[in-house]
Amino acid sequence: MAHLPAPGRRIDLNADLGEGFGPWALADDDALLDLVTSANVACGFHAGDPSIMRGVTRGAVERGVSIGAHVAYRDLAGFGRRFVAVAPAELTADVVYQIGALDAFARLAGDRVRYVKPHGALYNAIVRHEEQAAAVVDAVAAYDPTLPVVGMPGSAVLRRAREAGLPVVREVFADRGYAPDGSLVPRGTPGAVLHDPVEVAERALRLVAEGIVVAADGSEVTVEADSVCVHSDTPGAVALLTAVRRTLEASGVVVQAIGR
Amino acid sequence: MAHLPAPGRRIDLNADLGEGFGPWALADDDALLDLVTSANVACGFHAGDPSIMRGVTRGAVERGVSIGAHVAYRDLAGFGRRFVAVAPAELTADVVYQIGALDAFARLAGDRVRYVKPHGALYNAIVRHEEQAAAVVDAVAAYDPTLPVVGMPGSAVLRRAREAGLPVVREVFADRGYAPDGSLVPRGTPGAVLHDPVEVAERALRLVAEGIVVAADGSEVTVEADSVCVHSDTPGAVALLTAVRRTLEASGVVVQAIGR
Amino acid sequence: MAHLPAPGRRIDLNADLGEGFGPWALADDDALLDLVTSANVACGFHAGDPSIMRGVTRGAVERGVSIGAHVAYRDLAGFGRRFVAVAPAELTADVVYQIGALDAFARLAGDRVRYVKPHGALYNAIVRHEEQAAAVVDAVAAYDPTLPVVGMPGSAVLRRAREAGLPVVREVFADRGYAPDGSLVPRGTPGAVLHDPVEVAERALRLVAEGIVVAADGSEVTVEADSVCVHSDTPGAVALLTAVRRTLEASGVVVQAIGR
Amino acid sequence: MAHLPAPGRRIDLNADLGEGFGPWALADDDALLDLVTSANVACGFHAGDPSIMRGVTRGAVERGVSIGAHVAYRDLAGFGRRFVAVAPAELTADVVYQIGALDAFARLAGDRVRYVKPHGALYNAIVRHEEQAAAVVDAVAAYDPTLPVVGMPGSAVLRRAREAGLPVVREVFADRGYAPDGSLVPRGTPGAVLHDPVEVAERALRLVAEGIVVAADGSEVTVEADSVCVHSDTPGAVALLTAVRRTLEASGVVVQAIGR
Repeated sequence: MAHLPAPGRRIDLNADLGEGFGPWALADDDALLDLVTSANVACGFHAGDPSIMRGVTRGAVERGVSIGAHVAYRDLAGFGRRFVAVAPAELTADVVYQIGALDAFARLAGDRVRYVKPHGALYNAIVRHEEQAAAVVDAVAAYDPTLPVVGMPGSAVLRRAREAGLPVVREVFADRGYAPDGSLVPRGTPGAVLHDPVEVAERALRLVAEGIVVAADGSEVTVEADSVCVHSDTPGAVALLTAVRRTLEASGVVVQAIGR
Repeated sequence: MAHLPAPGRRIDLNADLGEGFGPWALADDDALLDLVTSANVACGFHAGDPSIMRGVTRGAVERGVSIGAHVAYRDLAGFGRRFVAVAPAELTADVVYQIGALDAFARLAGDRVRYVKPHGALYNAIVRHEEQAAAVVDAVAAYDPTLPVVGMPGSAVLRRAREAGLPVVREVFADRGYAPDGSLVPRGTPGAVLHDPVEVAERALRLVAEGIVVAADGSEVTVEADSVCVHSDTPGAVALLTAVRRTLEASGVVVQAIGR
Repeated sequence: MAHLPAPGRRIDLNADLGEGFGPWALADDDALLDLVTSANVACGFHAGDPSIMRGVTRGAVERGVSIGAHVAYRDLAGFGRRFVAVAPAELTADVVYQIGALDAFARLAGDRVRYVKPHGALYNAIVRHEEQAAAVVDAVAAYDPTLPVVGMPGSAVLRRAREAGLPVVREVFADRGYAPDGSLVPRGTPGAVLHDPVEVAERALRLVAEGIVVAADGSEVTVEADSVCVHSDTPGAVALLTAVRRTLEASGVVVQAIGR
Repeated sequence: MAHLPAPGRRIDLNADLGEGFGPWALADDDALLDLVTSANVACGFHAGDPSIMRGVTRGAVERGVSIGAHVAYRDLAGFGRRFVAVAPAELTADVVYQIGALDAFARLAGDRVRYVKPHGALYNAIVRHEEQAAAVVDAVAAYDPTLPVVGMPGSAVLRRAREAGLPVVREVFADRGYAPDGSLVPRGTPGAVLHDPVEVAERALRLVAEGIVVAADGSEVTVEADSVCVHSDTPGAVALLTAVRRTLEASGVVVQAIGR
């Protein structure tokens, strides 16, 4: 049985949105927008086209959902899930481009980009890749030094963001398996992705209330979190998010968007 | 012999810049930035990548050159020179995306996007294509209703921009042949593009001083201009621009950037 | 009540396959491959990536389904549904490139490309656009003058293909509304796309048996067909195709692939 | 003074061609085609579009130059010079796609693809990256097991190609600096690229005649070569290639294309 969360405990609930392109879609963006507090919106490099970005930002603003720039390697065919050895100066420019393009739509919809969250292989790379981590931080700091960066607790990118004076958002994954060292079980490995809404919701609650997740080997791992991510492109994403949000709110946790 | 320009006559001098991509370049951007007052900067759809955009916007701001968003159809392989029957709502989103991305770099460099100029086939289409003209105007008006739109005098896009309350910049081409009706001689036709610096500079001066250009059939065509465009991707572009600028300034014309 | 088809009447049944890209998919390719006799396989310009092409061509060859090159404008974002004013020589090269790339996978799977069917806006354009129709025919004739071209009866492309000595395949659409002149009711117009399996199957049978389709205004239009197309990206495509195939076979029609 | 080459010593002379895209070009392809015996032709993933591929393959066949598929990561913005962690099965499909597309143009021109040479970061990666090396070899072997693979002597890709029964072509670089271990001095490091035609031609001759190159530290490195590569995108590439070819031929070396 999980402990109760501290009174007034607040958490953000984020998911990836707008991950279609042209005729294609991955997720039920409308349903997900009703459940998250923060939307990581694809900016055209791994997914997302201008029309999709316009629609998602409108939907987010209508619901009071915070808009985050889900910046990625330029790799549409690989959906941004392949490491690319892009030079730091080019990566900085690529990230600025993506934030700027999304910010245009956020402003049209009446708000602005409220945070930056790297996507996929870039997210994973800058847990340890110092040059690329620095390049991402440079981009955000140059664009707007008040924008929070979302990343893995303990990652190079969050350390460098803090050093650069940027706000940081530490993120946990409710539907991903953890290794004993706090890293994620790699996709494609058994236990990498969890699908049972009850289990995922319980994990989310324990993460929020106690800062603990049970790793694949049964050990308890301590993780501090400001935001819980639930993947939107897994089957049953809507059911998972519904369960997570209800469970958290039923326990007295206040779900609240990044930057609010 | 051309008439003298009216005292205090002001004109903008614009050219296309940043029209490379990855390893490729079309023009000597640094040399051109020393000669123009306004730079039409490619935004990634027909040319231009984030690193190039970063470099060109820096160079423009250092020299007091105004940055314009050179928005285009999404057609890198065709360099934006092929008409694309894109739906108006999608075109509006595509234009917003491009302005936003460029504005990010303009702001990093210490300025902002100061005007929007459609490129290539889009430029030509919206002389008459009412739906696409309206779509471009919608994008600019939504992004920033103080941004001027650059286009052909008499075009649908300038008429609609005026109706929407946007400032407009009427543009003439110093190095392109004109038909008696004031339209451009199509590329690929003899006399479409002029290469002699002296001839081009004389045309520019007469356009600015008298509002007259001699058409391919020898007739005089009246054209009112706020800006003179010299193409950057023609051989000898630097020599042409040098001649045009010197000739204008020697005649007392003040070259002055859009939006200043 | 439809007439019975002539004894031994043969017809091909084709649908668009492999219309995903990277992480995205549009249709249930495996289920569709069990129902069609010919697969129009996307070649990377409007959809389709090498990994998808490899999988679909394998699946087609395993089932004895003919592989057709579904060639398109280079327009991934628009899914090839937007007219592009590409110059004929470039269009020819674009089509050769796509056929060659798909043929590599067809040969790896143990067969070869057996026909060429233009996709989307290109398909529609070359009903009347003579230069682009000629460009497509040039590409097919240069690649392999024994390859059939699939198109609309009465179209410029089929006329030119015949003149060039290429085999032609006249195609009708079981699930699209027809205008009295034999053209398709444009997408987005009421009655453009039919969804009822029973109605679509009845139309297919009458088209095959009598060469007649009932137009949107109730008039009967004569259309000669060598192949029936059922769209794969409409909801219920599998149910439609199942109904069409069963109805045709139950009436004694032999469904047989192009080029067999 | 270099030793004389053995009587009848034959060598191939290769360079990268067709490395433009849309409006852009990197090299003087026509001049280079007069100098090389084998042309590594970009296939659209790092450079090259169908129109360029059509032109270069025609030019190659007219001059008896062998056409090689210069296959690359899908990375137009990075010109294929950035490592991409593409999964082996996807890389195999990407390579098959590129070979097939180029082969279509080679056949139109009256010949066929005669070898495969990986480009840029892929070339470098598969010196040691076993999975990607195997993926490239799988693609070539599946497409045509008589096609030679061009690569670095001692590389994983050449070892695996040999094991798979493919012919291999060991390549040396006349205009690149070598480290004492036989690897190339990385681009961006002093001495990475040589520009003096006399020096480059002398190196080429010694490589061919003695199998020796002088490394950056002055030591002599033994390298066996079937082909000499001169880069086409360095300034003065035509002068370099002219000097190399003349020097080799003046010394009695027979320059002869791969696969002839």
